[in-house]
Amino acid sequence: MATTQPTLYTSLSPKLINLYDVSNSIVVIIDILRATSTIATALHNGAKTVIPVLSVAECIKLGKQIDAITGGERDGQIAEGLANGNSPFEYSREFVSGRTLVLTTTNGTKLLHMALEKGANNIITGAFVNQTRVCDYLLAQNKNVILGCAAWKDRVNIEDTLFAGAVIDRLKENFSINCDASQIALNLYKDAKQDMYQFMQDNNASHYHRLAGYGLHEDIKYCLSTDVAPVLPIYQEGKLISLPAPN
Amino acid sequence: MATTQPTLYTSLSPKLINLYDVSNSIVVIIDILRATSTIATALHNGAKTVIPVLSVAECIKLGKQIDAITGGERDGQIAEGLANGNSPFEYSREFVSGRTLVLTTTNGTKLLHMALEKGANNIITGAFVNQTRVCDYLLAQNKNVILGCAAWKDRVNIEDTLFAGAVIDRLKENFSINCDASQIALNLYKDAKQDMYQFMQDNNASHYHRLAGYGLHEDIKYCLSTDVAPVLPIYQEGKLISLPAPN
Repeated sequence: MATTQPTLYTSLSPKLINLYDVSNSIVVIIDILRATSTIATALHNGAKTVIPVLSVAECIKLGKQIDAITGGERDGQIAEGLANGNSPFEYSREFVSGRTLVLTTTNGTKLLHMALEKGANNIITGAFVNQTRVCDYLLAQNKNVILGCAAWKDRVNIEDTLFAGAVIDRLKENFSINCDASQIALNLYKDAKQDMYQFMQDNNASHYHRLAGYGLHEDIKYCLSTDVAPVLPIYQEGKLISLPAPN
Repeated sequence: MATTQPTLYTSLSPKLINLYDVSNSIVVIIDILRATSTIATALHNGAKTVIPVLSVAECIKLGKQIDAITGGERDGQIAEGLANGNSPFEYSREFVSGRTLVLTTTNGTKLLHMALEKGANNIITGAFVNQTRVCDYLLAQNKNVILGCAAWKDRVNIEDTLFAGAVIDRLKENFSINCDASQIALNLYKDAKQDMYQFMQDNNASHYHRLAGYGLHEDIKYCLSTDVAPVLPIYQEGKLISLPAPN
């Protein structure tokens, strides 16, 4: 009766990603506040590519070499020596269209490189701002999936877990999910989905407070908005490009 | 106005315990199915001490040396060479009263030894069966707390997270909780508390299925029962003893 469905697992922290077979799965990098929201936004606004790099020094050097926009943050603020930060609002169409963005962030970029080191060869980035494109891609590919939460300095966070839950809510009938972390994420999403911004406040989300402390309420609201940057960033040959939507 | 409250963090997997300052906190080892439920039960039924050891070989050797009961599991079943398993029902008053139990389990014992290696010097074990004693102790001590979930081979699980949530639900007004994992655990517990057994089934909890597959439904029901073994197991000089209740 039942056909074999692909598996879906959720890794709630980079420290847990090695428990899963990344080399045989599509790995979705999730860093809602704010790397993967910003990546989708920059690509949606016409950036040619986004190159994720690990260090600020590498970001500066590569930016000069290829005459690219450089951006990134450390601990939620613009990293010293970079021209731009990690806010999606910095990457307007006027600014990024046709250009390359070299980006370094605390958690998202790190997780992507960890997955690469472990042999991942099918990596996309996901965020609420491109949620439907991510889900449609995963449904169409029909391959095993690992939802990789970037977390905050390896500590599990609410917003990345919420996004994992949102994806699972859409995909759960089409994947075999024998993964308690996925069930936990799904429950959290169901608790929060009516008003995720309010949920973040009510639950004292640590990252909410960190960014709100910098006056970044609008960033948070934007990063919790669904499908406002409907692109599918896929990692190919060292860079993230926007995969055209299927016909 | 506000007095400084002690902190509370939740580590959802042994892989994450190093992110927290175990040497300056009470560490609560949580392995609901079934190590910490069985430890509380054995002590409640009059066992003199429970000695947690890492390996089956060590368990057998020490059991002979001190003429103790040996028990433990690997992958949810009685480990080869041991007389007993990891079911709380095996450790009746008739069997364990006045005796020492040397216990080795897949996840709980491992986490306890990891915490010790990282300098933890105040370790208790917690489970639903001794929930109120654990909470009362943590409230009375007024020290920083780390809720350490044993998980399953480092993968986050529902039942340990649920117990963390139950403890947080009781302690949340008395501790400073800047920890998304704790908020996630609390939400999960609120979703589940009306009927945790049903919740485990409905959410396809991986450990539920593993144990149910061995016919251990009654073990699961018992391990989700509150305060049926009201002891406070505390780790002192290499063994877990029952701390007498305060007057």
